[in-house]
Parts: sequence; structure tokens; C-alpha cells
Amino acid sequence: MADARYLEDFLVGQTFTSGSITLTSEQIKTFASQFDPQPFHLDETAATASFFGGLVASGWHTAALTMRLLVDSELKIAGRLIGVAADELKWPRPVRPGDTLHAVSEVLEVRPSKSRPDQGMVKVRTQTFNQGDQPVLILVANLVVPRRPG
Amino acid sequence: MADARYLEDFLVGQTFTSGSITLTSEQIKTFASQFDPQPFHLDETAATASFFGGLVASGWHTAALTMRLLVDSELKIAGRLIGVAADELKWPRPVRPGDTLHAVSEVLEVRPSKSRPDQGMVKVRTQTFNQGDQPVLILVANLVVPRRPG
Repeated sequence: MADARYLEDFLVGQTFTSGSITLTSEQIKTFASQFDPQPFHLDETAATASFFGGLVASGWHTAALTMRLLVDSELKIAGRLIGVAADELKWPRPVRPGDTLHAVSEVLEVRPSKSRPDQGMVKVRTQTFNQGDQPVLILVANLVVPRRPG
Repeated sequence: MADARYLEDFLVGQTFTSGSITLTSEQIKTFASQFDPQPFHLDETAATASFFGGLVASGWHTAALTMRLLVDSELKIAGRLIGVAADELKWPRPVRPGDTLHAVSEVLEVRPSKSRPDQGMVKVRTQTFNQGDQPVLILVANLVVPRRPG
């Protein structure tokens, strides 16, 4: 992968911005019918009477779309984007049909591995925003990142 | 929803077990091509040379499948399964083609809301296991649960 980043290329405070994705009600329903078949993700009428007051995307759909935004973003890591754990995952507000999402990631921590001299960990906070710049997902993830070969 | 549970029906230490799902390599690739298009999720040959040594499911695919297992499980909540945040999300080992997954959830905390007398929060730890009873996902989630009406 050209211009891929190694552990040595990451600095606390760096930010990476993704492109954007617009979500349709069909996509919301298709994802939900497979992974999260609840009325407020499947049917406009049922959703109107629900907690959300209308059709909303599954939180896992928002998370999966955020992953897609990150994979396609400028956050290109040698060895690719591999998360081993999230310290935090929040859905501060729902995603609705027609919302356009983009993600902004900030490096919080860069740490060489004690047991694996060839790799380290980068902790990144990703916020996914809707078209009104309101956060719809906050994810703090620990990524495995290779060190630059010798 | 018949036999749906209200906040009053949850007790710390309760456990809920899901049914099971077996994952194919086609499903792994289909999910990945949409949400996590990285070589080790898309192509067996490329995956062999990767960090994982073979094709593995996207961690977000494992998370979405866990949601499906929970929605179909006996953890039936009045108002449905609505998570606002996860305190922890880990993928201790990858999911590979042919793996059969099931989830076990345990209630960690039950807390009425101070600001919303009609609802509360239930903190649940869900572990998703493969056919060898090895955990592939650990999720600690905070669920919004309605109180039993009047």
C-alpha cells in the first residue's frame, strides 16, 4: 500500500478526515433485516410510535459505515486497519434516512509493544458526524500498527 | 411483545443464552466488500499472507451477528433492545469461515433513571463464543429499559 503509515509516523494530536456516505431508508432496512430486525429499523409506521419517533439505522450499521469511511480515508496503516479493542463506543444520537456521515479521527496515544518489537498500538478517537455536524458515533479504538522495518 | 421484560424484571447475575449462527466465507466477503474492504476479509490468498494467516470476518460483522443473536434470544425487553453506549468492546480472537457462534449475556447492573421516571439502564456483558467455546467478542453495553407501567 503506497504511503502506508508505520508506528513511527503517528503523533498524538494528528487528525484524519474521511469522505462521506449518505444513507437511504432502503439501506437501513436491508442491514436491519439481516442483523438487527427491530421495528424502528425496519418499518416507518412502526418506527413512528417507537422510542425514536421514526426510522433509524441500527447502531451497528452506523459502526460498520464508520469502518468503511475509515478504510477509505487517508488513515492508511501499513498492515491495514486492525482493531483489537474499543475503550468507548457511544451513539449520542440516531442516524436517519438521508443523513450524510463523515468521520474525523484523532490520535490519542502511540505506544510501542513491550512483547512484540515489530509492532505497537495507536489509540484513536473517531467521531462520526451527520450533515449538521452533530456526532452520531464516538469510538475510541486501539489499533495494531507495525513498526517501520529496520 | 409477549413476555417482554421491564426494568423490574432484571436482576444482577441473570444470564441469557442465544441460539447459534454459522458463518460462511461468502458471508464474510459480502459484509467486508460493503463495510470493511480489506484483503484479509475479502480474499483467501491475500489473507494467508496477512496478520491473521487466513480469511477472517470483520470485527464489525462479528458485532452485527452478535446483535442478531441477541435480538433473537430470550433477552426480550419491553421497548426493544436499545443500546446507548458500550463500556467495552473486544475481539479476543478472529472469526473464521465455518465458525458457529452463540452469545451469552449476563446482567451486571440495574439502575433506575434519575431524570426519567419511566425508564432505567441495564448494563449487560455479552460474550460471543465460537464452537470451541472460545470468546470471539466481549461487549459491555448499557441498555435503555422501560419501567413497568404504573
